[in-house]
Amino acid sequence: MQRWKLTIEYEGSTYYGWQRQDDVPTIQQSIEDAIAKFLPGDRAILHVAGRTDAGVHACGQVAHFDAPIGKRPFTPHDMAKAINAHLRPQPISIIQAEPVSIDFHARFGAINKLYCYRIIARPSFLTFDSGRALHVYRPLDVAAMRMGAAHLIGIHDFTTFRDSECQAKSPVRGLTRLDITETLDARTNAQMLHIETESKSFLHHQVRNMVGTLTLVGKGKWHPDDVKTALEARDRSKGGPTAPSAGLYLMRVDYS
Amino acid sequence: MQRWKLTIEYEGSTYYGWQRQDDVPTIQQSIEDAIAKFLPGDRAILHVAGRTDAGVHACGQVAHFDAPIGKRPFTPHDMAKAINAHLRPQPISIIQAEPVSIDFHARFGAINKLYCYRIIARPSFLTFDSGRALHVYRPLDVAAMRMGAAHLIGIHDFTTFRDSECQAKSPVRGLTRLDITETLDARTNAQMLHIETESKSFLHHQVRNMVGTLTLVGKGKWHPDDVKTALEARDRSKGGPTAPSAGLYLMRVDYS
Repeated sequence: MQRWKLTIEYEGSTYYGWQRQDDVPTIQQSIEDAIAKFLPGDRAILHVAGRTDAGVHACGQVAHFDAPIGKRPFTPHDMAKAINAHLRPQPISIIQAEPVSIDFHARFGAINKLYCYRIIARPSFLTFDSGRALHVYRPLDVAAMRMGAAHLIGIHDFTTFRDSECQAKSPVRGLTRLDITETLDARTNAQMLHIETESKSFLHHQVRNMVGTLTLVGKGKWHPDDVKTALEARDRSKGGPTAPSAGLYLMRVDYS
Repeated sequence: MQRWKLTIEYEGSTYYGWQRQDDVPTIQQSIEDAIAKFLPGDRAILHVAGRTDAGVHACGQVAHFDAPIGKRPFTPHDMAKAINAHLRPQPISIIQAEPVSIDFHARFGAINKLYCYRIIARPSFLTFDSGRALHVYRPLDVAAMRMGAAHLIGIHDFTTFRDSECQAKSPVRGLTRLDITETLDARTNAQMLHIETESKSFLHHQVRNMVGTLTLVGKGKWHPDDVKTALEARDRSKGGPTAPSAGLYLMRVDYS
């Protein structure tokens, strides 16, 4: 068998998330179906770096699968091309396919993940970015959000920002980065925020719960130090709301 | 009556263009329907700066209409908000509404238009930009395209780049700008081109026909000087193909 690493981009709006389920479209199902159309032998199973929820997007998701080695092995280019051909016209694209050693594991081998959350503040509804960003009407106080975010950097018990259904053994995570970049668009009178965060791994809904909380700070409803109080409470009910899935993008997964 | 100028953004993929037609969704129909839901009196008619074709997008389309002045006149903010509220959840958004004098005319008063055409060259299919850019597989030769584009700047008879159904009296237009900006995305191994062009007005399909021709130059099928030969032939059959509507954006309309 040959193990393949796939780097995957998808627009998640019309999917019920990554994980295969009965009777609803998922990213995993779509890609496995595409592979099954040209690969001989047993149906390939994809193992993913991080399962994304319904409506979440990816620019750099990673998954692996094992394929039998035929008489004429696939080149990386041909493997990506074959999967993509069978994925059309779905908004899922294999950016890169790489043969890797059999001890590579998309999930267990990941040493770092980068997520980006997009917020657009403008008076009018979104058109091009509908389903691809959180829309708020008024500009957020980015300086305050950055002060709030600073409390979350480092190793903490993130119970306050963890979904009640999270199955991770420990609520402790080490957040190495939580940056907020602001750009202004004079044409639409819009403020666009990119909230980028990195960690070896995240708890279920952790990014969306952190963003939902920072949005309260940006709206002036919370003081930046309230984020510290919420974190230290280790109680989900003390955190802000879960930001919508539409703004979230899995950007990159790193391996050693 | 009060005349209102609207600046409009729309994702045109799901519309049969700007102009109202029987039985198919159009941008004009959607906005007129939205206005009719809250404005008393006769149904308002929108007059547009430039009718866009099916699948073409706009970031800064302009239209005007006349509204009766009620007991409590609309503020610009309230007018935009009211139309937007009735447009939801369509991908059409009023960016700005401004009261203007009765001699303002969105079409006849325009002194300059800016269009942008987006091309993305990458090995894998588009996801987020599907329907929003022309996709080609291999990078285009931008230096050659710029040399070809230089032949089109200035006042010319653009018959070669004019749709056979174009109703303009004269095929002569003055092109003041045709710039090609290139950005590279290392993540997806993509080359992204923005072709920006400005003129007081354009012939039907002129931008898409110019882009289709320059794409032949970018692919090496045409020499840059072939653009000059084609222009001088004043014959549509001597020009390149019409680039797809998906890549075209009406960015801005200027008034004196």
